[in-house]
Amino acid sequence: MTSGKASVLSRFNAPLETHSFPVPGEVEPGAILVRTEMAGICGTDVHLWKGELPITLPVILGHETVGTIEQLGRGVDYDWTGEELRVGERITWNSAISCGRCFYCADKHQPTRCPQRRAYGIGYRCDEPPHFLGGYAEMHYLRPGTTTFKLPDDLPTEAVIGAGCALITAIHGVERTGIAWRDTVVVQGAGPVGIAALAVARSAGASRVILIGAPKHRLEMAKRFGADEVIDIDSVREPADRIRAVRDCTAGYGADVVLECVGHPSAVVEGMEMCRDGGKYLVLGHYCNAGTVAFNPHVITRKQLQVFGSWSSEPRHLKYAIEFLRSTQQQFPFASMVTHRFGIEQANEALQTTASLRAAKAVIIPAKRR
Amino acid sequence: MTSGKASVLSRFNAPLETHSFPVPGEVEPGAILVRTEMAGICGTDVHLWKGELPITLPVILGHETVGTIEQLGRGVDYDWTGEELRVGERITWNSAISCGRCFYCADKHQPTRCPQRRAYGIGYRCDEPPHFLGGYAEMHYLRPGTTTFKLPDDLPTEAVIGAGCALITAIHGVERTGIAWRDTVVVQGAGPVGIAALAVARSAGASRVILIGAPKHRLEMAKRFGADEVIDIDSVREPADRIRAVRDCTAGYGADVVLECVGHPSAVVEGMEMCRDGGKYLVLGHYCNAGTVAFNPHVITRKQLQVFGSWSSEPRHLKYAIEFLRSTQQQFPFASMVTHRFGIEQANEALQTTASLRAAKAVIIPAKRR
Amino acid sequence: MTSGKASVLSRFNAPLETHSFPVPGEVEPGAILVRTEMAGICGTDVHLWKGELPITLPVILGHETVGTIEQLGRGVDYDWTGEELRVGERITWNSAISCGRCFYCADKHQPTRCPQRRAYGIGYRCDEPPHFLGGYAEMHYLRPGTTTFKLPDDLPTEAVIGAGCALITAIHGVERTGIAWRDTVVVQGAGPVGIAALAVARSAGASRVILIGAPKHRLEMAKRFGADEVIDIDSVREPADRIRAVRDCTAGYGADVVLECVGHPSAVVEGMEMCRDGGKYLVLGHYCNAGTVAFNPHVITRKQLQVFGSWSSEPRHLKYAIEFLRSTQQQFPFASMVTHRFGIEQANEALQTTASLRAAKAVIIPAKRR
Amino acid sequence: MTSGKASVLSRFNAPLETHSFPVPGEVEPGAILVRTEMAGICGTDVHLWKGELPITLPVILGHETVGTIEQLGRGVDYDWTGEELRVGERITWNSAISCGRCFYCADKHQPTRCPQRRAYGIGYRCDEPPHFLGGYAEMHYLRPGTTTFKLPDDLPTEAVIGAGCALITAIHGVERTGIAWRDTVVVQGAGPVGIAALAVARSAGASRVILIGAPKHRLEMAKRFGADEVIDIDSVREPADRIRAVRDCTAGYGADVVLECVGHPSAVVEGMEMCRDGGKYLVLGHYCNAGTVAFNPHVITRKQLQVFGSWSSEPRHLKYAIEFLRSTQQQFPFASMVTHRFGIEQANEALQTTASLRAAKAVIIPAKRR
Repeated sequence: MTSGKASVLSRFNAPLETHSFPVPGEVEPGAILVRTEMAGICGTDVHLWKGELPITLPVILGHETVGTIEQLGRGVDYDWTGEELRVGERITWNSAISCGRCFYCADKHQPTRCPQRRAYGIGYRCDEPPHFLGGYAEMHYLRPGTTTFKLPDDLPTEAVIGAGCALITAIHGVERTGIAWRDTVVVQGAGPVGIAALAVARSAGASRVILIGAPKHRLEMAKRFGADEVIDIDSVREPADRIRAVRDCTAGYGADVVLECVGHPSAVVEGMEMCRDGGKYLVLGHYCNAGTVAFNPHVITRKQLQVFGSWSSEPRHLKYAIEFLRSTQQQFPFASMVTHRFGIEQANEALQTTASLRAAKAVIIPAKRR
Repeated sequence: MTSGKASVLSRFNAPLETHSFPVPGEVEPGAILVRTEMAGICGTDVHLWKGELPITLPVILGHETVGTIEQLGRGVDYDWTGEELRVGERITWNSAISCGRCFYCADKHQPTRCPQRRAYGIGYRCDEPPHFLGGYAEMHYLRPGTTTFKLPDDLPTEAVIGAGCALITAIHGVERTGIAWRDTVVVQGAGPVGIAALAVARSAGASRVILIGAPKHRLEMAKRFGADEVIDIDSVREPADRIRAVRDCTAGYGADVVLECVGHPSAVVEGMEMCRDGGKYLVLGHYCNAGTVAFNPHVITRKQLQVFGSWSSEPRHLKYAIEFLRSTQQQFPFASMVTHRFGIEQANEALQTTASLRAAKAVIIPAKRR
Repeated sequence: MTSGKASVLSRFNAPLETHSFPVPGEVEPGAILVRTEMAGICGTDVHLWKGELPITLPVILGHETVGTIEQLGRGVDYDWTGEELRVGERITWNSAISCGRCFYCADKHQPTRCPQRRAYGIGYRCDEPPHFLGGYAEMHYLRPGTTTFKLPDDLPTEAVIGAGCALITAIHGVERTGIAWRDTVVVQGAGPVGIAALAVARSAGASRVILIGAPKHRLEMAKRFGADEVIDIDSVREPADRIRAVRDCTAGYGADVVLECVGHPSAVVEGMEMCRDGGKYLVLGHYCNAGTVAFNPHVITRKQLQVFGSWSSEPRHLKYAIEFLRSTQQQFPFASMVTHRFGIEQANEALQTTASLRAAKAVIIPAKRR
Repeated sequence: MTSGKASVLSRFNAPLETHSFPVPGEVEPGAILVRTEMAGICGTDVHLWKGELPITLPVILGHETVGTIEQLGRGVDYDWTGEELRVGERITWNSAISCGRCFYCADKHQPTRCPQRRAYGIGYRCDEPPHFLGGYAEMHYLRPGTTTFKLPDDLPTEAVIGAGCALITAIHGVERTGIAWRDTVVVQGAGPVGIAALAVARSAGASRVILIGAPKHRLEMAKRFGADEVIDIDSVREPADRIRAVRDCTAGYGADVVLECVGHPSAVVEGMEMCRDGGKYLVLGHYCNAGTVAFNPHVITRKQLQVFGSWSSEPRHLKYAIEFLRSTQQQFPFASMVTHRFGIEQANEALQTTASLRAAKAVIIPAKRR
């Protein structure tokens, strides 16, 4: 193969265009060339397409990807966990790499805040070689230092992409927050991050998980993932009523831990009232700047809260995610979240399906024909 | 003594009135009768006087008090640390008592959120026996269960009242937040809580403490208490400039820990920007409901912050405070904070001096004559 | 009923004797009179019977008990969680009470080390009223301050006694140690504490739990409780081989967390080698003084370990246990651990069955006839 | 300079020999060539010389070194904190480098247990280029990846070497253990690590630090470094008496935190008895395998202890150390610990002075003439 197709974002809010780029003949030492098997459409891709985040075009979107190895650069013998890598094997990888040496990486052990991070599908232009630095394409180039993970044979690609970056984001967020054994947990939001946070909380020792969101098909999915209660925001429309509903489930006190996976500032004000005094609150859904809300800091002092933020994830979270997905497929059917499949030339439809919230998860399968 | 004078808050915003109440002849088992030596005027007293907190009148204000034991009820042989108590000895005590058995006390180890807490000088009417349940009075009645502390001879009463409830509030807040050895710390606020937080941070391993506030005489005091830098908000009037000033002191990153001791909601928005990514923020100054501010939760996610609230304090914090005050009198001259002294009949002047921010600390000394 | 039977330990190593004691006519304020439904035989009871712990005789053994309320003292209206109590209802309780006010209770938040603790079935003589202060008896007197828990209707008594004090001990121990989500865990010991630790670890987020012990019937039970691997010490007889077996299951590194539930000092030396570097080790099985072992502290420095001890449990652990037992009966069949049932006059047989390790759990059912 | 002198350990227990090695003409990219200004003699060097640790000879000893830059390899523009590096500047560095990518570095955040670590002065043969990989030499070669720190002008070299690896070891150990504000702390051991642990504890919020050790001149130094009490093991010869002495200083309970900096196994057994129940114990002194001691694990369960190990240190600890040394020179006079100075050809005397415990700290100054 000397050239490969890619779906390119050239202008914000305009349709993606299918382009062909030359495939590198021989990869540099440390790099890997991958044939894309499946790429997930993340809600962030919709924000990127709308121009809501500061990126430089043109870009091949897609930061949740599985593929098979076409070519291994010199010196790439093992994946991040020490498994041997060979041509033809199926892998996934972290979309961003931290430097490992800077103030945030080495001094403060906060590698997700490394200033050198750039993410595949977001931070690389595609009009310069090696071009293939995003998931919506037939090929994917992995630069030296990319942290890769060989996928076990008994783990379907659809489970990995169905979980997507939502799962590793949730794993990191819950890790930072800490769920104590038998804590009661509220998840705000029924999107991919909310469902993933539910699965992590459920398996991390929570005694009871209450999920708040919409629409109905997502609440049904939340029940399949083990939610003890769901609160439908289309039915319980007033924040005060939702707060009361949570308290009614928690002996009047509120939950030990509340995980915000919504992204609307008003959810934060509402969610803190769902915490018991001395409880914990995770602000996980605010990757984008969604503006301000009228907030009263008195609630943090008076309720003696702990509030946590969490940004992106580290390689180890992807390692845990893969092993978790493999061993809990019955309990947490992430593969079933992939509801819509598109070929490389249907990338616009895929984006729009995601934007409309019709899909649980839409994906691009480059080998797929209409 | 069969009757004692007290300064009574009978109507909000109206002058305090001096009343006489009968002194209990014999105290019940577990109780203690104390002759008040000195009572501090706390900023909260000003809020109470203005009717900004929901209390039932009439009340004798004053929740920071030192006195000498007049009468010990049956069964009160020891103070909270196990020191023997005798008539004539000088003690202080926690203004509120937790039940030790409820959900917050025993299950969640958050005794400051015990719903049974009522504070001397705030939560007790004075028109019923035993009347003397606040500090602005010649006598003070300590109900059974009050946690008392015998004061060491080499610790002046003025140091205890100069530190006041600000110190134990700061101790609890810093404990909840955690200052790592050699952390850089910003204190927002130069009031009693800010100065106390500075002293605690300074002695808890901070490598550098930057205090932001006003007016000048308070910043001078901050320097005496060991602030490495002070930023005068009367000179540096723009939040953006203050944020830049903090970053300039911290290699461009922001501080590891920022302690809010102001009570204005806008300070919270400003202060979070003073944290480095992955840093910690304490909302300590918002005991009163001071309204809302336009707040963007994105900052918590993006900067991966930890935000803490802290309410009131536990008996152990008062124990640590007394021992701390005793052993660090040279380094942290809390006694020098007592700048204005009033007799019992001058309680209004004392309150107004505090309200005007003229005093570092105003106190009432019942035995004082004009 | 004016008198009740009890099985009394009057001399160490001698058979228990059945005595009759007068039942209190009216209980004091704060106390409760209970009719014993079932009492568990704990391994500690065997140690007590042999005189291996310093107690004063005569004693009615039994510190794991469920019964129904016969009489409620004045002022006892609610259980520890706030549920209303009524005559005829089924309850359990903590065997020991902490004072809530001492150095360990209130200053250091370590109430299990309160010096005032005395345990039912261990620390009370039975030759003085109210006599009934242990489980091997028809009646049980609960002194004022005892923390009680009303049992939900859908939780069988056998589950509560089958779990016994082993479960709350394990809950506290695992809480102190901390199991991170997806940690690999080794449990040393297949006795009641080992099985309980397995259940807690399993439900607290462990990705993999390896249990080491014997005999075969206990390892079978461990598998029913979800052990991923069991190592039979009757087959793998050399510590070095067991250490190797653990490393083979953990990519060569050792486990993240090792929980010692054995009580032989040599298990500690062996178990620390089963930890990965930087891992955690819980010494949970050493309630009795079982003597010394040749130990090299170099292992703690070199492997950079964290080692934890844990003593007894707090009321909140019993609260969590009851709720856990109720909601996980299918997954963790603690009721099935009750394999041997005895009447009050067969208490010796019950003890010997426990001493011989023949029973998973032996119990006394006072109402049972031969 | 085309050749440089070095003191070489060729045979265990035999005198060091002075050799000349060729100085590299041009260093490889990423490397640095340094002219040694001062090298500390560490107690570990004595163990190495005696052959008590498994190393391959010949070796140039010395892992605590300060020097000036002679030559900067391509790409080495900044030190670890981002300060620009130039020829002629004075620097120090970590003796070992972690890989940043392995299981321990990246997954478990325990980089000191990285299996790729090799330390200057310990783990490199000197009979192959670049030869100069230890401190007892005129030159020192820093391999690519070495984490360097430019020294501030107002920090004397003697303070850095006086503190040596003892200080960074203590910083890491105390960090892992955690000292809460106003904790009481016991330090076991008056050697360099004990004195450093005292300084760290003192500045980390301890209310009271008790140091136990000998001989007298070291206890005097401990007092200069702020010890509140010293216990002379040459006077108080029985462990039981020392335990009693500690309890007498701590209201009968024992200390909140005990830091073992001795290296004799018996110190661990003694030290755990010096902890209060629920207290913390750090095993810091056991870098070498000093054999076993009869140890009873019951103490860990019964006293509900937390025990920590800590191995070596990370680059950030050296960063904190330099800043700490610079800003606390009056309070903690580490420079005064350098009591004996030797030239490169007197390295044997330097080692023997250290072995005999006559010196607080012996150093080699290559430029020194007899």
